[in-house]
Amino acid sequence: MSGFFHNDIRVSKLPLQEIIDEIREEVGPFLSQGKVADYIPELGRVKPEQFGMAVTLLNGQTFETGQSRDNFSIQSISKVFALTIAFAEWGDQLWLKVGREPSGNPFNSLVQLEHEAGKPRNPFINAGALVVADSIVSRFSEPTDMIIDFMHEISGNSGLEMDSNVFDSEKEHGHRNAALAHFMKSYGNMESEVNEVLNFYFGHCSVRMNCFDLAHAFLYLANHGKHPLTAKVYLAASQAKRINSLMLTCGTYDAAGDFAFRVGLPGKSGVGGGIAAIIPGCMSIGVWSPGLDKHGNSLAGIKALELFTTKTEISIF
Amino acid sequence: MSGFFHNDIRVSKLPLQEIIDEIREEVGPFLSQGKVADYIPELGRVKPEQFGMAVTLLNGQTFETGQSRDNFSIQSISKVFALTIAFAEWGDQLWLKVGREPSGNPFNSLVQLEHEAGKPRNPFINAGALVVADSIVSRFSEPTDMIIDFMHEISGNSGLEMDSNVFDSEKEHGHRNAALAHFMKSYGNMESEVNEVLNFYFGHCSVRMNCFDLAHAFLYLANHGKHPLTAKVYLAASQAKRINSLMLTCGTYDAAGDFAFRVGLPGKSGVGGGIAAIIPGCMSIGVWSPGLDKHGNSLAGIKALELFTTKTEISIF
Amino acid sequence: MSGFFHNDIRVSKLPLQEIIDEIREEVGPFLSQGKVADYIPELGRVKPEQFGMAVTLLNGQTFETGQSRDNFSIQSISKVFALTIAFAEWGDQLWLKVGREPSGNPFNSLVQLEHEAGKPRNPFINAGALVVADSIVSRFSEPTDMIIDFMHEISGNSGLEMDSNVFDSEKEHGHRNAALAHFMKSYGNMESEVNEVLNFYFGHCSVRMNCFDLAHAFLYLANHGKHPLTAKVYLAASQAKRINSLMLTCGTYDAAGDFAFRVGLPGKSGVGGGIAAIIPGCMSIGVWSPGLDKHGNSLAGIKALELFTTKTEISIF
Amino acid sequence: MSGFFHNDIRVSKLPLQEIIDEIREEVGPFLSQGKVADYIPELGRVKPEQFGMAVTLLNGQTFETGQSRDNFSIQSISKVFALTIAFAEWGDQLWLKVGREPSGNPFNSLVQLEHEAGKPRNPFINAGALVVADSIVSRFSEPTDMIIDFMHEISGNSGLEMDSNVFDSEKEHGHRNAALAHFMKSYGNMESEVNEVLNFYFGHCSVRMNCFDLAHAFLYLANHGKHPLTAKVYLAASQAKRINSLMLTCGTYDAAGDFAFRVGLPGKSGVGGGIAAIIPGCMSIGVWSPGLDKHGNSLAGIKALELFTTKTEISIF
Repeated sequence: MSGFFHNDIRVSKLPLQEIIDEIREEVGPFLSQGKVADYIPELGRVKPEQFGMAVTLLNGQTFETGQSRDNFSIQSISKVFALTIAFAEWGDQLWLKVGREPSGNPFNSLVQLEHEAGKPRNPFINAGALVVADSIVSRFSEPTDMIIDFMHEISGNSGLEMDSNVFDSEKEHGHRNAALAHFMKSYGNMESEVNEVLNFYFGHCSVRMNCFDLAHAFLYLANHGKHPLTAKVYLAASQAKRINSLMLTCGTYDAAGDFAFRVGLPGKSGVGGGIAAIIPGCMSIGVWSPGLDKHGNSLAGIKALELFTTKTEISIF
Repeated sequence: MSGFFHNDIRVSKLPLQEIIDEIREEVGPFLSQGKVADYIPELGRVKPEQFGMAVTLLNGQTFETGQSRDNFSIQSISKVFALTIAFAEWGDQLWLKVGREPSGNPFNSLVQLEHEAGKPRNPFINAGALVVADSIVSRFSEPTDMIIDFMHEISGNSGLEMDSNVFDSEKEHGHRNAALAHFMKSYGNMESEVNEVLNFYFGHCSVRMNCFDLAHAFLYLANHGKHPLTAKVYLAASQAKRINSLMLTCGTYDAAGDFAFRVGLPGKSGVGGGIAAIIPGCMSIGVWSPGLDKHGNSLAGIKALELFTTKTEISIF
Repeated sequence: MSGFFHNDIRVSKLPLQEIIDEIREEVGPFLSQGKVADYIPELGRVKPEQFGMAVTLLNGQTFETGQSRDNFSIQSISKVFALTIAFAEWGDQLWLKVGREPSGNPFNSLVQLEHEAGKPRNPFINAGALVVADSIVSRFSEPTDMIIDFMHEISGNSGLEMDSNVFDSEKEHGHRNAALAHFMKSYGNMESEVNEVLNFYFGHCSVRMNCFDLAHAFLYLANHGKHPLTAKVYLAASQAKRINSLMLTCGTYDAAGDFAFRVGLPGKSGVGGGIAAIIPGCMSIGVWSPGLDKHGNSLAGIKALELFTTKTEISIF
Repeated sequence: MSGFFHNDIRVSKLPLQEIIDEIREEVGPFLSQGKVADYIPELGRVKPEQFGMAVTLLNGQTFETGQSRDNFSIQSISKVFALTIAFAEWGDQLWLKVGREPSGNPFNSLVQLEHEAGKPRNPFINAGALVVADSIVSRFSEPTDMIIDFMHEISGNSGLEMDSNVFDSEKEHGHRNAALAHFMKSYGNMESEVNEVLNFYFGHCSVRMNCFDLAHAFLYLANHGKHPLTAKVYLAASQAKRINSLMLTCGTYDAAGDFAFRVGLPGKSGVGGGIAAIIPGCMSIGVWSPGLDKHGNSLAGIKALELFTTKTEISIF
């Protein structure tokens, strides 16, 4: 499959630095419209009017603008990394425990979980990410060390680490996730102890990265499973393609359809305000702005990606 | 945007005839596994073990295999044509009346409609297609003639017509669609009379096409809104891209995530057993086999598309 | 069963006139707190600050206060009369088509109907009343004349009639009920034509009565199925008991539990502001005040019934 | 209120011993039709074809038949005792934390809990009983000792105790209740630690009683809150009336409407096969048979109560 849509000549002619600098200007008015996540105090203290963006080509060339080196809590973006590890380990058996369909609006997430006997709709809703976490915890002896090592490798930044304040706060306010985990355990869809699974899950969600790290960390998904800078293969090409399709259909909470409609790229957001997106065969993008829209996605981040695809005329559609 | 992913050289080297003939062989064992739609007698009488496939490049070159010239009821595939007309007419105002998000599993479709005050999740679930139908009926004096003319134009086949037996039978058994229409009217999200809307809707669903017609009819979506053979522009490039993203995220009922995962192309299915899919900038595909899977999609049709993307190594991801 | 709880001596000593006059005084402050139903203009024009009450003993002795002879639209109270006719006609076969369980909160009424394949939870939610209406329409040639004659007989007032403005307005705004009827027809749980059923249903809902009429009309339910003043038997004792239990568990929309908790009597309310309640073996009560609480029940009417059971120390519990 | 419906003369003439012996005969064919609860092994080992019944008048006279002195796990019947303690302690403040409405069918219990922001519909569904448990745990230092003492007092049997095997087994399989508790804690509707609440809850559910104990233990609810044999007042008359109304509308899971319809008495069932019911001002009844119907209520137990009200012609309706 590799290279079908790759078009080095076309991409190399795009004035990417100019484009992202323009975007930084144009998203200015949107920075104050979002609302910082405040379900835990650690996230609530972040100043909303911040913005950074980084674009990395498959050859490693990177274009940056704004606060592209400021760290933030990656939160749900980390679900992609956990899914990568679990999919590589379990292969298609993973789909016996978690589905691949969008979840519809969140108000009925629990009734769907009940209706489908404890099997979550996809790996990116919290219930699904807890099943993915369980599939890792039940297989590896030091799961947290392992996933952090994985993030070091793919980002090329061995300094990445968990934010212990965020971790502690998530645990203290994590009753809804505990409810989901116990609920799935009642259906037999959770092998390990609930507490171990929650520790691992809150752990990988609390890691801090910046846009530069994020753009590098997603290169393997833009390059069919193989990191283009280290040549290490993390997933088969067909598996990378499948994670990309999951990001497109389920990566931005209940706004995945809108994201596909407006942006048209596979991407994954987190409530810390980060979004990672990829253009298969071309590049990966990290963008960050802490103010969220009503769906929990970075308001200016999505706007930036929409402007990026408009200005570059790149789309998978 | 046009042409970014287009790669004539690569596509021109694919042995497409050989590939689709192989596919016809390989789907043989699957033809008897599906179940023909039987909610109306006219569809229930179709013999399940049939299969056809046609692939049309942007230059019009077409590759066919099996019963690619046998007509079948296009059913929900026609929702794409209605959406095209409504989107071209109303522009982004259309999205005030219908959403763009996947709908989750069907058992709670009504509760979602209730929760969201009569605004359907997307234009491809029945409720959404009825709103699209209303937006056409309330604007055009002869809506049925118009949409049939549109199908003649895009397929290049002026012989296409409604199947009056199917139309009558749909109307007679259409109480669920009548319920949806009255329900939305009670929320003020339906302008025209329920009966007029239903007549138009059942009309366009009852048109018969074959795989050859279908592959031609979807070329404008593979070519950014402009029909490559007639040069007529039906949609702006950004609009075509958006319909394609809707097909990917919502085009195959509650199996859209699975379709994106396995096939990785924008596509739209109908309970008559047809599926149309496109590869942006390259080609469009019509496939047909009447036996359906549990989600209401052609079982062998999806298998054929999965084999096609595997063998050609083409994917938007 | 007859007479077990009947206690003429005890009841005959209650100063009923004094009690209901006190109640009229005490509900004064509540008259302005409710909100008149306004989904159709005919109901929206009613002045909220009105109140009437009538209590009729089994011997016909009646105590009245306030506007007990002012007519109002009985609306859903009429569902009890339709249920009586259908139950007498069909016997326990009726319960194959409609259940006997409370419906939970209204937001999921449709999903329950879907989950239970078109069989409504009970005869007092709209879906259930439409099934009851269908069971009458499909059996009698002049159903509307018949139910109006029935109301004449049980109330002793042959002047009762439909309000044609209310009837027309209900029909015009009846899309939600049309949706329910088509939905059930799609499940095969509606024999007659949707329009005939709706005509009959809107007809009996649009009849006007006053508190005096209402108290008389419910005497047969307070007297085990036999009208105490005419000696005509409308229901077997066990059937009357069962309708009374249905009124207690399902008679006041999603506030039936609260009504049982606070009032403790079988009763049925309507959005016209009327409520009928009975004390088995003793008396029946008609009360009216047009201002509704958030559940659609007469705010001052419920308060009056609560005061009545407190002051008389009468309760079935 | 006391005594309005009381009718010693009428009751004293009923041949109660003969009636319950007849009932024991007549339920024979039903004993094998139910299915013993098997979600924990301790309940699954009980032999289904057992039956006992006890009727106790307000003067303490008791009529017994069958295995009326065989102990069984009272399970959810204990929710009435916990509710009594919580209602006496908190008064109407309790209703800020838990509602009083029937819950509709169980498949959407969680979505209702979500829709109503963590406030359960009533104190007898598990979520509601956990809130009641929390209201006791957060107020008393030795809650388990206290509720067991309460059961000793009202039953007159100081030998009642928890079954530690059942308790352990409930805890081990209690992930669904843990999910509910964490879910409500996430909404701020649970003050104490989840584990403490679960321990107290599983504790009172695991107590063993027999029909004779049960009939005595419910006398205070048949006598307006005051135990007729000890003269101790546990609840105000209006509070007892309200618990009785809750038992009628919500006491038998999703079959409360059917129970009211067929039996017509306030009652509470448990998955151990026990049911307690009361006739206000007259008597209380304990019945037991381990085979359950599809709603989780004792199949022969409900049949026995239906026969009892038919034969005695007693009903609150």
